[in-house]
Amino acid sequence: MAKESMWALLIFVAAIRGSLAGIPREIHLLRPRSGSAGERVHGLSCLSWRLGVETNNIKNWTTVPLECEGYVGHYMLGHQYREDSKVVAREAVLYAKSLKLAGDGKDVWVFDVDETLLSNLPYYAKHGFGAEPYNSTLFNQWVLTGKAPALPETLELYRELLKLGIKPIFLTGRTEDQRKITSSNLRNAGFSNWEMLILKGSTYSGTTAVVYKSSERRKVEESGYRIVGNIGDQWSDLLGIHAGNRTFKLPDPMYYIS
Amino acid sequence: MAKESMWALLIFVAAIRGSLAGIPREIHLLRPRSGSAGERVHGLSCLSWRLGVETNNIKNWTTVPLECEGYVGHYMLGHQYREDSKVVAREAVLYAKSLKLAGDGKDVWVFDVDETLLSNLPYYAKHGFGAEPYNSTLFNQWVLTGKAPALPETLELYRELLKLGIKPIFLTGRTEDQRKITSSNLRNAGFSNWEMLILKGSTYSGTTAVVYKSSERRKVEESGYRIVGNIGDQWSDLLGIHAGNRTFKLPDPMYYIS
Repeated sequence: MAKESMWALLIFVAAIRGSLAGIPREIHLLRPRSGSAGERVHGLSCLSWRLGVETNNIKNWTTVPLECEGYVGHYMLGHQYREDSKVVAREAVLYAKSLKLAGDGKDVWVFDVDETLLSNLPYYAKHGFGAEPYNSTLFNQWVLTGKAPALPETLELYRELLKLGIKPIFLTGRTEDQRKITSSNLRNAGFSNWEMLILKGSTYSGTTAVVYKSSERRKVEESGYRIVGNIGDQWSDLLGIHAGNRTFKLPDPMYYIS
Repeated sequence: MAKESMWALLIFVAAIRGSLAGIPREIHLLRPRSGSAGERVHGLSCLSWRLGVETNNIKNWTTVPLECEGYVGHYMLGHQYREDSKVVAREAVLYAKSLKLAGDGKDVWVFDVDETLLSNLPYYAKHGFGAEPYNSTLFNQWVLTGKAPALPETLELYRELLKLGIKPIFLTGRTEDQRKITSSNLRNAGFSNWEMLILKGSTYSGTTAVVYKSSERRKVEESGYRIVGNIGDQWSDLLGIHAGNRTFKLPDPMYYIS
């Protein structure tokens, strides 16, 4: 073998080894480290942790496990989060199309706002994807910029529901004093049409999202509307009373609201 | 470089290339084909489909999408299914340990049987992992062998609950005529201790699992027991009335029972 070929071979070996070593740290490639488990750390599979969160088996957690910060970041920035959201939105559209609507304008669909209509990923990407403790001051500063983009899959669902004559009701844990910026942010993101935008009034301060949202949904139905569907990223959007004829859970491995 | 070293280098290169090329088809390695998405087929991410199933966004499906048979097989036979089950069982143990029990022998935990206490994976591995239409004749033949192994993670949970003084109640969609084989299978698999083994009586034939199981759980609580926890692989084990103070959803991408 000539000296040149031997060098070429050595470089080839180095390249293969380098590409293997380089896989885990690329931000947009969601290569699980081991099997399909995602990163495996200290006996914890971050993929199993995420499934536990999404199925509501793991509750009342405060921050993403530090070992899973990288995993959650990859997930949220990569295509899997979008794929997962797409499947949820597609099922919701299929369900909505299957409904026999009364056509009296009383069929409504409840949407949560954060991580449902609007994405705070630009904020969380700078704050550890949920691995940093929640900082309400900083988060509210972000909210007040009014720059949260739409979650494209929910925007698609929203448009389909409007076409079907199902009216959107937005029900959010954002507080009443954020009405103006929330309205303009929603409009700028493409959600310009709503029957109600319900924000958390001061009478609910200290109550859980399940209690607040159940109570507001009851008012909605008592005033004559029928909640045919309900979509949110938190189980607390979907549990409780007057939850809607069918509920849809969007993914969110970044935070937990009870 | 000596001839021997050169051969060693060539073999090393071949080994690396071989291992790269061999990844996608090994049955126990759960390497997603693209990103963390699992196999990507016809616009469907099998991982997203599975998440949709586990979160109850996708309902009333009859068979695993044909394109996902390989994916589901890899998942079930690989370590991820076990990891996912382990996280659920661990959360259930943590929850049980946090309880203040009355110590009067009335605290019970409801377990589903198939894909919860016992695994039918040996059967499903021969029948397309849920991609083949359900065949009740063949499945019942398998049940009558009495050879279903324990799901090890649930066995661990079961033992922990017994230690805590929480009594197990087994509530299954298997029919009353399968009582004897089910009892012996459970005992052989390590579940030899139960307060009740409730099978589906003929009065429930034609009713959904949600209705049947809710009704039986109501009887349990009306007779003085408190259902402190409830675990199953189907949402129909966990929804409805008297569902238990907390519920735990085990993974099952192979079939859906309403």
